[in-house]
Amino acid sequence: MNTVQVETPGGSYPIHIASGRLDLLGQSIPDDATAIALVSNPTVYALYGQRASQALAKTGKRLVHIELPDGEAYKNWETLNLIFDGLLQNRLDRKAVLVALGGGVIGDMGGYAASSYMRGIRFLQVPTTLLAQVDSSVGGKTGINHPLGKNMIGAFYQPVAVEIDTDVLATLPGREVAAGLAEVIKYGLIIDAKFFAWCEEHVDALRALDSQAITYAIQRSCELKAYVVSQDERESGLRAILNFGHTFGHAIESGLGYGEWLHGEAVGCGMVQAAELSAITSGLSAESVQRVRALTAAIGCPVRPPDLGTDRWLELMQVDKKTEGGRLRFVLIPEIGQAVFESVPAEALRRVLDNAALPQE
Amino acid sequence: MNTVQVETPGGSYPIHIASGRLDLLGQSIPDDATAIALVSNPTVYALYGQRASQALAKTGKRLVHIELPDGEAYKNWETLNLIFDGLLQNRLDRKAVLVALGGGVIGDMGGYAASSYMRGIRFLQVPTTLLAQVDSSVGGKTGINHPLGKNMIGAFYQPVAVEIDTDVLATLPGREVAAGLAEVIKYGLIIDAKFFAWCEEHVDALRALDSQAITYAIQRSCELKAYVVSQDERESGLRAILNFGHTFGHAIESGLGYGEWLHGEAVGCGMVQAAELSAITSGLSAESVQRVRALTAAIGCPVRPPDLGTDRWLELMQVDKKTEGGRLRFVLIPEIGQAVFESVPAEALRRVLDNAALPQE
Repeated sequence: MNTVQVETPGGSYPIHIASGRLDLLGQSIPDDATAIALVSNPTVYALYGQRASQALAKTGKRLVHIELPDGEAYKNWETLNLIFDGLLQNRLDRKAVLVALGGGVIGDMGGYAASSYMRGIRFLQVPTTLLAQVDSSVGGKTGINHPLGKNMIGAFYQPVAVEIDTDVLATLPGREVAAGLAEVIKYGLIIDAKFFAWCEEHVDALRALDSQAITYAIQRSCELKAYVVSQDERESGLRAILNFGHTFGHAIESGLGYGEWLHGEAVGCGMVQAAELSAITSGLSAESVQRVRALTAAIGCPVRPPDLGTDRWLELMQVDKKTEGGRLRFVLIPEIGQAVFESVPAEALRRVLDNAALPQE
Repeated sequence: MNTVQVETPGGSYPIHIASGRLDLLGQSIPDDATAIALVSNPTVYALYGQRASQALAKTGKRLVHIELPDGEAYKNWETLNLIFDGLLQNRLDRKAVLVALGGGVIGDMGGYAASSYMRGIRFLQVPTTLLAQVDSSVGGKTGINHPLGKNMIGAFYQPVAVEIDTDVLATLPGREVAAGLAEVIKYGLIIDAKFFAWCEEHVDALRALDSQAITYAIQRSCELKAYVVSQDERESGLRAILNFGHTFGHAIESGLGYGEWLHGEAVGCGMVQAAELSAITSGLSAESVQRVRALTAAIGCPVRPPDLGTDRWLELMQVDKKTEGGRLRFVLIPEIGQAVFESVPAEALRRVLDNAALPQE
């Protein structure tokens, strides 16, 4: 088993990464837990619910199931309230533990419900998508969407542990594997040039979900993200670099309508655009831009941005919640493995966005 | 000006207590705030909204008003969402500051909204009832009610400062003054026998809202609560003693229907019952029980519990969220100024509850 220990001011917890972890979930339930609530959706539950339930039942504690509808469209208050209803109807007290079994939506909602139920109960995160394993299960970000913006309501809240069973990726659709790998290579781009090069070398093994390659990629991603988060739990500084590619990516998701592209696909394409912007403003070499584009394409992500029109792009980017007092700042990479967070001239941004409208071969 | 500095693991902040603080609110807004959202209700706003707005406008920052319906019945998700709507429609970013101007409901909802908006913005608490000044503005408890239980959804979240203007108590109904004083004497009962005796000596001045007496009572209450909270921010141990009288009090509120008695009135009466229970199980002298009853009556609180019937009392007390794994524990006072948190024999509890059904002179 590979373990990454995450240290934050808000708490310290282990991420366990191995084949077969699902059957050992009970080991991560604290002894003094009074009951367990297993939160999942029908898709994930049909695949892994029984194994998870059996593993949790081994603790001998009372187990309650709470099923949420599947999909980002349900990441809202009404669905969150289904968790609260289930916890209260079953009279779970503040020493109960919530287990979030699923992708990013289940993890975000389960974590936020845990943070808010009786002002905070413990939770165990069991991410079942590659994206959730390398991204949303690390760093304590939880929350729901609001009609006026994604992830606008939430909390920073750390789990007691994260359990990553690499076997579950076998049932993941190919597009979701690509979306997860986009986040993996992002860590290389912003902080670890060697890891980026390793991804280039192992791209075929990663796409094929080779056990050794994918376990290392998840571990290294978690280590790198954990390092960044440990420096800056509340996103006041360094943590912003994790948003590399996200300002473009959010505009793609919002401009096309959420769900058209997967989040990771939009971020993958956004990283290529952010690399192009970095070439203009921060000295990233043309060869490096090409490496970013090539690897993003090789993992199976789209690298050509949708033609939203430059004005629409700009409009979409202004409403991003990273806008502070009106300035538009970007995460840029002067070179691969190094990131900065800086204001950019509108002219440079326009050049990148105008590119998106050009016919490409 | 009197200042109490509150130190907690989650943050440190000052409570300023003085006549006229409302006109100086701008001083507590951090320099880097990008905007201010003033959250209040029509009742409080009609009395103090203009003065608060003028004081905040002096910062030169953009000021947004968010008005919520008045009353505990509105302490729910729908009303909380009015805050999120207002923040998002006005595009407040994560460096905005929320100012909660009102009683406990406004403070609880404003604080919870601040804790959750973009995963946490800063907030300034301006409590306008005596109860909120001595209780809910200290300790970081925020939240909303759920149809299945009060305060079931929320967060521990600390303000950047609490501003207490003692002048605003002049417009407070007499019953609300009594309800606030119940919490004041509670601090004496659980932790400071000298302060309890001081309250006995100054009960007339307190009921008359004599400026010097009430300022000291608020300051001492905040100091005592701050001490308890600083030892135990997340209510795992010592903090439980703050619930003295509350298990009985919640049963009264719930049994009669919320709003029939004020929360502080129910707690006042509950403290008398908790003192009776302490006499049976923990050695509190009959003379001390009589002092508790006499001072509770002298501040204007009911001391005779409603006749709910013993079985109904027990039913109401079992669902309390302090029930852990089924045991029923109480805060008890072996003597005035000293509290413990212990399981009690059902028989002792029944004796106290049977008392409530007796005809009294």
